[in-house]
Amino acid sequence: MSLVNPSILPGFMELLPEEQKLFDKVKNTIEKNFIKYGFVNIDTPLIEKEEILLSKGGGETSKQIYRIDKDSTAQALRFDLTVSLARYVSMYSNDLNFPFKRYQVGKVYRGERNQKGRYREFYQCDIDIVGNENLSIINDAELPAVIFNIFNELEITNLLFRINNRKLLGGFLESIQVFDFEGVLRTIDKLEKIGEDKTREELLKLDISNNNIDEIFKFIKLGHDNESVLTELDKLDIGNDTFKLGLEELKTVYTYMKKFGVNEENIKIDLTITRGLDYYTGTVFETFLIGYENIGSVCSGGRYDSLANNFSKRAYPGVGLSIGLTRLFYQLNEAKLLGNIKSDIQKEILILPMDQENIDYGIEVLKKLRENSIKADIYLEKGKAKKKFAYADKLGVNYTIIVGEKEENEKLVTFKDFESGKQDLYKIEEVIEIINGGDL
Amino acid sequence: MSLVNPSILPGFMELLPEEQKLFDKVKNTIEKNFIKYGFVNIDTPLIEKEEILLSKGGGETSKQIYRIDKDSTAQALRFDLTVSLARYVSMYSNDLNFPFKRYQVGKVYRGERNQKGRYREFYQCDIDIVGNENLSIINDAELPAVIFNIFNELEITNLLFRINNRKLLGGFLESIQVFDFEGVLRTIDKLEKIGEDKTREELLKLDISNNNIDEIFKFIKLGHDNESVLTELDKLDIGNDTFKLGLEELKTVYTYMKKFGVNEENIKIDLTITRGLDYYTGTVFETFLIGYENIGSVCSGGRYDSLANNFSKRAYPGVGLSIGLTRLFYQLNEAKLLGNIKSDIQKEILILPMDQENIDYGIEVLKKLRENSIKADIYLEKGKAKKKFAYADKLGVNYTIIVGEKEENEKLVTFKDFESGKQDLYKIEEVIEIINGGDL
Repeated sequence: MSLVNPSILPGFMELLPEEQKLFDKVKNTIEKNFIKYGFVNIDTPLIEKEEILLSKGGGETSKQIYRIDKDSTAQALRFDLTVSLARYVSMYSNDLNFPFKRYQVGKVYRGERNQKGRYREFYQCDIDIVGNENLSIINDAELPAVIFNIFNELEITNLLFRINNRKLLGGFLESIQVFDFEGVLRTIDKLEKIGEDKTREELLKLDISNNNIDEIFKFIKLGHDNESVLTELDKLDIGNDTFKLGLEELKTVYTYMKKFGVNEENIKIDLTITRGLDYYTGTVFETFLIGYENIGSVCSGGRYDSLANNFSKRAYPGVGLSIGLTRLFYQLNEAKLLGNIKSDIQKEILILPMDQENIDYGIEVLKKLRENSIKADIYLEKGKAKKKFAYADKLGVNYTIIVGEKEENEKLVTFKDFESGKQDLYKIEEVIEIINGGDL
Repeated sequence: MSLVNPSILPGFMELLPEEQKLFDKVKNTIEKNFIKYGFVNIDTPLIEKEEILLSKGGGETSKQIYRIDKDSTAQALRFDLTVSLARYVSMYSNDLNFPFKRYQVGKVYRGERNQKGRYREFYQCDIDIVGNENLSIINDAELPAVIFNIFNELEITNLLFRINNRKLLGGFLESIQVFDFEGVLRTIDKLEKIGEDKTREELLKLDISNNNIDEIFKFIKLGHDNESVLTELDKLDIGNDTFKLGLEELKTVYTYMKKFGVNEENIKIDLTITRGLDYYTGTVFETFLIGYENIGSVCSGGRYDSLANNFSKRAYPGVGLSIGLTRLFYQLNEAKLLGNIKSDIQKEILILPMDQENIDYGIEVLKKLRENSIKADIYLEKGKAKKKFAYADKLGVNYTIIVGEKEENEKLVTFKDFESGKQDLYKIEEVIEIINGGDL
């Protein structure tokens, strides 16, 4: 039989065990906090009907989609978790409790061009709070608090939430008689990427007058810190209702973010943040790591008026945030920002029987450790001591327990702490105590 | 815009939040124990090249596969986790530490005919211990111990491991000059399903003589309990080397399963268990729930000589067990076997501000709870008290905290325990103490 070369498709992340542990630590921290903050998990199929996935129309999405060739129903892999949420909410609305706080962590698929740090299969970690017809604006302020807590636990504290409200610029544009709302917001969204000159050019192409473009730039550059942005916005005294509502919402979100526990220095009211998607109707968020802005936004989202208008006549207003975990992990790892959590990974202990005759005693010790909720393992293979130690070393365990003839006869174990380098004879009960929080 | 009917494809499991919590509890218990027993996670892409997936040849698999229409490389969704493990081990063998103990919990796809309790997308939970050229037989005994612990934690204690070794019947067949080893084992595998008469018929079709068929049945029915099966096998005194090795292996696995913590009454040496797959070469396992045998095997696997012979010339002997979680969950739930763990799900607490004016105080209380690692949430919407209590009720929370004018003025909270029905005024620090293990 000829051999098949073992390989994977390009654009897919696959990790070796050591990095996988780190990835899992990040993923678990995210999930744990989502749950702690009252979000419930939903686990929708990875495959959806194409009419569901493309219900908002094709375009770029349709080109990137992974179509599946099975049966007569057109079907494909999901490209995000939001479409499935919309489908889920409208499908089970009678059984759900609104506001419905759901989280989902799952893989999604996009046939993007191959690029370093860009993946075709990647985890999205989403939280949304979805109301039935209504949803308090204070909900918008809770989402960044969850994210703040997650990054704090990952010992990444240089987070900056850039927040804005799309109604502000929208109302302002109305007040200066500019009506291509979506066009302008989509263009401003690119400002940071393409610079002011290019942005002006693009706005001109949208038939915005030079005078109005100046006005727009004056507007989005208002203020120099959070309080002064709000004061300047107040001072504009624009009579437009959309603007007034937007300003009130922004103030509320800003105030409540702090009440929910986000520090003032981690928030930046930033009128240039608009998010490209028409979908968002109020609050918008982007999240950067101070000093690592080149990573881009590590978590984005916002408020929408209507989650499921392709599936239901009912309005489901909501607010959501999404972390692109696979890309984020790649970048945090490249930037060496995950070093601090490595030590938080569950301690490991390996039992090394010196001879095959000592295996039974080794298993006895192992069983006691596991019964005491300690993560432990045993090396069962034949071989020289050198081979056994090399195995423990490569596994990167924190402790080894050596059991040989002497240990077995005296009903003791030789316990070695790799960090301190200390090694001594102990009773197994003593080892359990040491690992469960006592000291060597 | 015309609405799209929100629906999912047939054969896919999707749960409402309450059932999802139960599912997650089962899944987390499985993963937690895999980790505790020293297995490391690998998370391979759901999409593999078709040449990898079908490297063992097509057949039934090829018909059931979910092909993906993307780019020029033939690709499809994985139908199990074993092919990906084989690919992974041979691809990264230089970076792995052998014996390589890996677990993987992930979705796999098979286009099976629709049937109650059968899913086209389902979770497999796999553990394997893979050696490089060699692997001690004692490893075979550790796997059922992990499974035993998982089910114990799920409060399902009526587990029966039916174990056998394929070398036994193989060696026996050689000794009576029957050489269609695979044919006979595949037929015996169906015995329980089709009955003895049908099995005899099928064996006749394989050109096995009536006399030999009698011998085979006498063999597989040997003994009446574990010890007597082993004694009877010894007494046969068959000089065939394969048989002798198989008997030695079976004795070792049986003995060490007990040393690793599985009880005698949860083990049955059963010579009729052969597993249909040619892949297995020694130990084979099936696992039943006593009293619920109709559920079928809830966890199966065994020992193989060569994991990756389609990808590598190197021998990777291993032993693995797999739980089909989606189907198992469906069946345990149908059989009402998951009731006991419902109460183990993390306690929930909901804060109900009586008026919008009390929200700020409510958030203050919430923040303190969360800072003390308590899972808590707040109801932020406007509405009458009745609506708020109905929300708490539907959410199924364990406790509510009511904050109104009185509570805010006195810096207290009204704390209600839904289980006991008790309700009283407390300081928030007292509530934290109660939830973290104290008493009402």
